[in-house]
Amino acid sequence: MGEPAGRPDAPGAGHVLGVDSGGSGLRIAVARADDPEARPLALRTSDEPVRTGPAGIDAEHLLSQLLPAAAELAREAGADGFTAGCVGAAGMATLGEELRTRLPGALATAFGVRRLALAADAVTAYAGALGQRPGAVVAAGTGMIALGTDLTPEGGWRRADGWGHLLGDCGGGAWIGRAGLEAALRAYDGRPGGSAALLARAEAVFGPVTGLPGALYPRPDRPAVLASFAPEVARCATGDDAVALGILRAAAGHVADAAAAVCPPGSGTTVACTGGLFAMGEPLLTPLRAALAERLPEARATLPAGSPLDGSLTIAAALSRDRLTLPVDRKLLQITRPAPG
Amino acid sequence: MGEPAGRPDAPGAGHVLGVDSGGSGLRIAVARADDPEARPLALRTSDEPVRTGPAGIDAEHLLSQLLPAAAELAREAGADGFTAGCVGAAGMATLGEELRTRLPGALATAFGVRRLALAADAVTAYAGALGQRPGAVVAAGTGMIALGTDLTPEGGWRRADGWGHLLGDCGGGAWIGRAGLEAALRAYDGRPGGSAALLARAEAVFGPVTGLPGALYPRPDRPAVLASFAPEVARCATGDDAVALGILRAAAGHVADAAAAVCPPGSGTTVACTGGLFAMGEPLLTPLRAALAERLPEARATLPAGSPLDGSLTIAAALSRDRLTLPVDRKLLQITRPAPG
Repeated sequence: MGEPAGRPDAPGAGHVLGVDSGGSGLRIAVARADDPEARPLALRTSDEPVRTGPAGIDAEHLLSQLLPAAAELAREAGADGFTAGCVGAAGMATLGEELRTRLPGALATAFGVRRLALAADAVTAYAGALGQRPGAVVAAGTGMIALGTDLTPEGGWRRADGWGHLLGDCGGGAWIGRAGLEAALRAYDGRPGGSAALLARAEAVFGPVTGLPGALYPRPDRPAVLASFAPEVARCATGDDAVALGILRAAAGHVADAAAAVCPPGSGTTVACTGGLFAMGEPLLTPLRAALAERLPEARATLPAGSPLDGSLTIAAALSRDRLTLPVDRKLLQITRPAPG
Repeated sequence: MGEPAGRPDAPGAGHVLGVDSGGSGLRIAVARADDPEARPLALRTSDEPVRTGPAGIDAEHLLSQLLPAAAELAREAGADGFTAGCVGAAGMATLGEELRTRLPGALATAFGVRRLALAADAVTAYAGALGQRPGAVVAAGTGMIALGTDLTPEGGWRRADGWGHLLGDCGGGAWIGRAGLEAALRAYDGRPGGSAALLARAEAVFGPVTGLPGALYPRPDRPAVLASFAPEVARCATGDDAVALGILRAAAGHVADAAAAVCPPGSGTTVACTGGLFAMGEPLLTPLRAALAERLPEARATLPAGSPLDGSLTIAAALSRDRLTLPVDRKLLQITRPAPG
């Protein structure tokens, strides 16, 4: 901040680096620092998710993929290093300690990065969906979290759910899939709340249901296994199965509850839903529109403008131009200003 | 069967061995084979649960505890070996392969056991609660399973739930505790369905709730951690917390649904609830009596006559006297007649 314009490291000069690290892999892109929309000039994706070890997200594993990809992207975009960067990662708030320690120095040394944002994936999802506008964003895939802000420093970020598959993530993919499998087993047992259609789909996907506990419990990725059944719930809802329709109506209610808990007050506030869950389409979106209209009658539901990777570039470009207005917060969005190595 | 009476290995002569192996340890007892009530003459308990390995329940680990304890019990009861035995174990249906292979020979060699029953813990719970009468038994602790039979060979066992904490066990300890923690986090987030009282108890037990995911997800015994919060839900219900009352009412409904799914038809059928969950007392038992009366108006709810260890002795004594009338079934109750070693 405050460097005179025109120097090579002046705010706004050059290019910025955006990173989105999640359960399905790593996405990296470059944008011009002076592009207000921070459109990606070039990008790389890796389908090897960054490992999490006993010390949290493995910084070495992230850097081993990030440094060579970022060097290629710099060449491709004609960039002489990066003035600023943003790394968004799933688990940043609770598992990001090693990233906070290692990344700023490593990126300063390799690319002259002078300002680096370390963001929870919910924050890059927010910035991708709404940019730097106030509002609320629900990010849902296997899990579900809602984040909102009125952009005032005292308001900060409001967060709801995102507690994981045993404590919450209500209405997310694992929640929907789990409810669908429970309904399948209720039908098998002859208990109330069962669905023969969901039982048929469960057997088609997993084989005889007596084998389901053995197929699920030993797996380390139980939430993903549960979430893999969510599209089958949508399929049964499309076929007018009452139990499946009820599950998706309840899921939509939970998602809208989380949005309402974080949405800043006032008319015309923007609410966006982003993430893989919503690819399920109308079986979920129809009850979700109804639930949002009921709980947030004054808000305006919009489509997300972009992805978490777009959000990461937006934050990096804003940081580079001294225009970051999203709330800064030790866990959700931390800014570091490393000295060059 | 068919051996002439009076020979030393005649049915009904001598003593029988009963074993109950579960998550909290191993219980072993001896009874006289000709005691129709199979009352324990002597017993041993070990608080070291039998290990489960990649090949299922570890037969070697079970035998290393069982053989010396059974030898002591034989001396104590003045028994010259055992004519029959029953080993009931949690996970017998799915993880009992090594026990099926190893136990019959080992117990024949050590104690002359000629008839051995290998039973799922739900079956020994049934036999402990109702003996060899037709009816339905709900066994609930961390998990929840219901088992019923009309004692006809074609009817066999009917089983409901018992699918584990992600797929069912609806109304069991982990289910109640999980629902209580979700309600605590709803209050923390400002989402509907929250309970300030449960939030206060969650913080008293686990510390600040932001640390709850980190305290729960890395644990291998997640269901037990969840179930450890169930008594706090009962405590809040006693204090008239509406959310806690609602959770226990729903749990009672699920337990009664499972009982109704397995209960043989007809008036006066006996239904018993057994297991540690019911030690919670009136906060659960009051809505449970109401739910059972609604779903099974013609059935008679009774207290369990005895424990799963009593059930194991009941099965062993019946087997010894050729009087076993409970349904035999490859997974739930298997009878082996080993040749002496």
